[in-house]
Amino acid sequence: MIPISRASAGIARLIPRRLPKAGPNGAVTRSIRSQQRCCSFQHAQTLPRALRRSLNRPGDQYIQLRFKSDTPAPAIPATPIPPKSRSRILHYAYRGLVTLGLFVVVSGGLVVAFFIYDYTTYSDDPETFDIPVSEYALNPRRGGPKNLPIIDYFIDDDDSEGMRAQKHKPKLVVLGTGWGSVPMLKLLEPGDYHVTVVSPSNHFLFTPMLPSATVGTLEFRSLVEPVRNIVKKIRGHFIKALAVDVEFSEKLLEISSTGAAGKEQRFYLPYDKLVVGVGSITNPHGVNGLEHCHFLKDISDARLIRNQIIRNLEIACLPTTADEERRRLLSFVISGGGPTGVEFAAELYDMLNEDLCKFYPRILRNEISVHVIQSRSHILNTYDEALSKFAEDRFAHDNVDIQTNARVKEVQSDRIIYTQKAEDGTTLTKELPHGFCLWSTGVSQNEFCQTLAAKIEAQKNRHALETDTHLRLVGAPMGDVYVIGDASTVQNNVSDHVVSFLRTLAWEKGKDPENMKITYSDWRHVAKRVKSRFPQATDHLRRLDKLFEQYDKDKSGSLDFSELSELLRQIDSKLTSLPATAQRANQQGEYLARKFNKLAKAGPGLAMNEINEGDIDEAVYKAFEYKHLGSLAYIGNAAVFEMGGVNFGGGLLAVYLWRSIYFAQSVSLRTRCLLAMDWSKRALFGRDMMNY
Amino acid sequence: MIPISRASAGIARLIPRRLPKAGPNGAVTRSIRSQQRCCSFQHAQTLPRALRRSLNRPGDQYIQLRFKSDTPAPAIPATPIPPKSRSRILHYAYRGLVTLGLFVVVSGGLVVAFFIYDYTTYSDDPETFDIPVSEYALNPRRGGPKNLPIIDYFIDDDDSEGMRAQKHKPKLVVLGTGWGSVPMLKLLEPGDYHVTVVSPSNHFLFTPMLPSATVGTLEFRSLVEPVRNIVKKIRGHFIKALAVDVEFSEKLLEISSTGAAGKEQRFYLPYDKLVVGVGSITNPHGVNGLEHCHFLKDISDARLIRNQIIRNLEIACLPTTADEERRRLLSFVISGGGPTGVEFAAELYDMLNEDLCKFYPRILRNEISVHVIQSRSHILNTYDEALSKFAEDRFAHDNVDIQTNARVKEVQSDRIIYTQKAEDGTTLTKELPHGFCLWSTGVSQNEFCQTLAAKIEAQKNRHALETDTHLRLVGAPMGDVYVIGDASTVQNNVSDHVVSFLRTLAWEKGKDPENMKITYSDWRHVAKRVKSRFPQATDHLRRLDKLFEQYDKDKSGSLDFSELSELLRQIDSKLTSLPATAQRANQQGEYLARKFNKLAKAGPGLAMNEINEGDIDEAVYKAFEYKHLGSLAYIGNAAVFEMGGVNFGGGLLAVYLWRSIYFAQSVSLRTRCLLAMDWSKRALFGRDMMNY
Repeated sequence: MIPISRASAGIARLIPRRLPKAGPNGAVTRSIRSQQRCCSFQHAQTLPRALRRSLNRPGDQYIQLRFKSDTPAPAIPATPIPPKSRSRILHYAYRGLVTLGLFVVVSGGLVVAFFIYDYTTYSDDPETFDIPVSEYALNPRRGGPKNLPIIDYFIDDDDSEGMRAQKHKPKLVVLGTGWGSVPMLKLLEPGDYHVTVVSPSNHFLFTPMLPSATVGTLEFRSLVEPVRNIVKKIRGHFIKALAVDVEFSEKLLEISSTGAAGKEQRFYLPYDKLVVGVGSITNPHGVNGLEHCHFLKDISDARLIRNQIIRNLEIACLPTTADEERRRLLSFVISGGGPTGVEFAAELYDMLNEDLCKFYPRILRNEISVHVIQSRSHILNTYDEALSKFAEDRFAHDNVDIQTNARVKEVQSDRIIYTQKAEDGTTLTKELPHGFCLWSTGVSQNEFCQTLAAKIEAQKNRHALETDTHLRLVGAPMGDVYVIGDASTVQNNVSDHVVSFLRTLAWEKGKDPENMKITYSDWRHVAKRVKSRFPQATDHLRRLDKLFEQYDKDKSGSLDFSELSELLRQIDSKLTSLPATAQRANQQGEYLARKFNKLAKAGPGLAMNEINEGDIDEAVYKAFEYKHLGSLAYIGNAAVFEMGGVNFGGGLLAVYLWRSIYFAQSVSLRTRCLLAMDWSKRALFGRDMMNY
Repeated sequence: MIPISRASAGIARLIPRRLPKAGPNGAVTRSIRSQQRCCSFQHAQTLPRALRRSLNRPGDQYIQLRFKSDTPAPAIPATPIPPKSRSRILHYAYRGLVTLGLFVVVSGGLVVAFFIYDYTTYSDDPETFDIPVSEYALNPRRGGPKNLPIIDYFIDDDDSEGMRAQKHKPKLVVLGTGWGSVPMLKLLEPGDYHVTVVSPSNHFLFTPMLPSATVGTLEFRSLVEPVRNIVKKIRGHFIKALAVDVEFSEKLLEISSTGAAGKEQRFYLPYDKLVVGVGSITNPHGVNGLEHCHFLKDISDARLIRNQIIRNLEIACLPTTADEERRRLLSFVISGGGPTGVEFAAELYDMLNEDLCKFYPRILRNEISVHVIQSRSHILNTYDEALSKFAEDRFAHDNVDIQTNARVKEVQSDRIIYTQKAEDGTTLTKELPHGFCLWSTGVSQNEFCQTLAAKIEAQKNRHALETDTHLRLVGAPMGDVYVIGDASTVQNNVSDHVVSFLRTLAWEKGKDPENMKITYSDWRHVAKRVKSRFPQATDHLRRLDKLFEQYDKDKSGSLDFSELSELLRQIDSKLTSLPATAQRANQQGEYLARKFNKLAKAGPGLAMNEINEGDIDEAVYKAFEYKHLGSLAYIGNAAVFEMGGVNFGGGLLAVYLWRSIYFAQSVSLRTRCLLAMDWSKRALFGRDMMNY
């Protein structure tokens, strides 16, 4: 019996009953398809919806019983839904249920399959057997200028067949585990080199998304990939230690490691090729009081920042915290309006706007202020001006305060002092109380690079180690030491090489390069060589005829040596140094990996032809060319892009695009899964607001 | 047209064509079902599979055209697959594809739906408007014995309609955010009390799974739930601070909070009801050198442990680390064979066995040792002996070394010294080198509880604050202060209350309780009162007749006062104190929440009847009764259970059960999702092996 609680009394009662094939004609009003499904639809519109739905059960038939009543049943027209559409509805409802059922079954199957897979991932039996370890690995010889242990062999050199095969291959030592070294390690083919990675950090950090981790939008571990995962694939070795010096003549890298009791130990690592990808350190710009600031270089910085933010919020909630103190605690100052500073300000603002109000007293929301102090006239000043403007408008909408043309003088524990140029040219000294200060104002050279630069006379750049266009450290023995990433800068000294560009020509003509007359066809030849050696100059060598005409000042139809030098010097001046970005480091790393793979392939051929001197790099692989793929920045539920010459900014959809790009660039399947999980977590549960 | 690339030339070409209902008889060989699907099966085996599949498109019919050819079509026997089974295979293949397609469509739909939901979770417009804040909240009055600020009102008391309505309700102050307080807060009905939670920690930690977080099986954040999430639901307040003292007479709680510059501030919080759930601290057992040990009480401990383990592994890999030093670094010592110590040893062993070998030199695996030092004769000594044995066997199989009957004397930075009783009764002093030592040997009273105990004369237990069976602190004004969890112990003093049990009887009979004769029916009456007051005694009061007979020593048919006292004293001696477990704290918290909800409901009635003295708790709600639900422990890809009197242990399937139980008990949907994600992560990518 179906209860008809809300049906009008005295009108109709329906009793479901399995009927024989031929039911009583008056009761069974219509048969659906050829099957045995029938329903009475008289008075259907007076029945409650749940009941009407229940009428649809296949196999049930309903007969209608009339009872005497004071008010006779009103004459109601025939079924409101036409028969064909009804059967179609039933049909689609049925299909919908089937679809849902199948979905549940397949999902369930996948879950079961996952559990079975999970079951197989537990290793039950402890396997211990004798491991062959070389005596030299356990007791290394001593030597070198400082008579330190020299590590020729490692304890895991014989761990597998593949590692044993690599034991005596050329030693490739890689310093650092950042955006330069890790892409290189990922592209390197196993089997060609005996690879050792030395770094104080045992993880690769996906820095572009680090600001997101500071406020709990992403988890710390979603941005890092253990370096041992990566090193394992090329059967390499990893040493968690710090490089301190290089003996170029003996090809020894001096390393400092910290032992169990904090005791420092030094040793030498021999190399055949050394790749320096040690990155940079924060630039203090000579400002005092940076001990009161946070930095944002590594994942531990992000942890400290998150803790400090939550701590400030909690203290602001204490009943004994005075009003002014609360405002100070909730004043977040970011010194530096570059991508890091801007993205951090944006993430911080998002968190405060979206999650804070849910859990903290509302008064906090009103007393929070976020300030960005920028030394230039715009934030994101390396981007297109329209994008800077877009970001500034966005921040103005969000009440994020931007102080431009401002230079920080000093940071104190509770305030930051800065000078600002007014529009009339006067300089004012201002101060801002702060409860939190982030210092993100560019990079400078770290200690190891300073040591190297001091050793080599040819190194004159104060900010980074200079390399040639094959990324070889200028001044070091050729082909031994490479520098990539923030630690390096690629020389743009086209004009210095004018003699070398002319040498072949001069040799062909039997002339002294410096006294040659260069015709237009000679010039085309020289330009080709310039392009191949300095790929960055290609853009400036498009109109060869115009250049030739312009610099042929005496209109002699040929350039002399001084005219050519002047031409190349002009090109030099137009070449900017490459940006210190993850993108550049990544491209340099991948370039090196490809070159090393080629070198290894070419090795036997070179040995056969007894080629072991000269510019082997040049002979084997092209020079490094930087291709700018674009920039992007997150600016608080909006993002700006600069890609392939197109600049645009937008709201949430742009944020999804911003995420997709980084998702695709993320280092491994593991980090991609974790990123997806994190974004889902944020949507479902908000950001984490805990400190410990 | 369907291309027939691989069909034999000259044999057959098939052109799909929509045919009229009656097709040419020779071409259409067989009709499938009653629908308009037909295929030619002649030469079907010579057609490529893709084509054969495409033949199944409903509504298409195929006619066969023969062409002249040099070689006549060979006579091919009938289809090798019987037509019926072939059509069935095709049918199922088709159904399979449909299922898969539907699955993809539904999954895709869900993903899109999730993105749309995600889109709505971003708040774009900063909302700032005036927030009403009480003047008293900003400038609290001063008072109390120490003339400190007294916080009657909070800055968020007027944040919402609901909070405003609660502003003047009875003040319920809850100390701690552990297994006692949080289950209480979760069950408390909003609207009845003005709730304030005070704790130095702003998260609830799911302690039973903490050992899993130490080695990266689980993430830290999957085990913690922000307390503000929980407090928000009952419109309460949270203060991150430490309770230091209570003024019982003025109902003031003294609180110490740390301000921005690390400055301590003290203030009073008035209460009507105070719940003390502050937990316990690690018991040092008077051993020196615990600064060289790790503890495992909070999530920050887990972080330190994880960092230390990875650090040891990395140092062990350094080429300058000597063999002996490597063995020391890889010697992990756990002092304490209770559930925490055992589960940590198991998790550590799992990590070393399953993940270490993948990424670290194999020699490490051979030199690792895990030791458990236990003072009793078995590990897990609170469990059934069979389970202890099972766990010990498991550890023996895993090469985890167990030292029983051993007491730690001293912990040094590189070794642990302990004495061990040999079987012949002699005591030997032994030592173990260690690179890591965990101290998990029981709990003791924290400072706040010691302060309270010192203030109250009636408190005599050195280990915990004594409460009556209504969980009220003994010696404090009745109904003001409750203690739950590890900080408390419930008094089992049945015999002390013999007079109160007899009072009603004596009053009915107009006699002095101490001179009464208690008949068997009187005794049944008394026993009923004992059971209601001391629910734990119920088990020992099952056979009332036997007890009566046994203690009626003069066989007079009645008990006198001293006989009854003796009987109750015997019951006392059989009652054990409740275990200091999460389970007990949880039950106590839930009990208090239910009682407070009842008290709030009963409040108006009591006020009407002018009942404001006497044992209101007793009148409104039953006494607390602990129900042991069972114990479980993870022992390394195996688990042991003790539930409802059934003891069992098992391998991986038991581990899944162990996980399910904790999964179900986990504090929120959020933590459940995170747990599931973590377990999947472990299966897919292994444990995290990074430190920072």
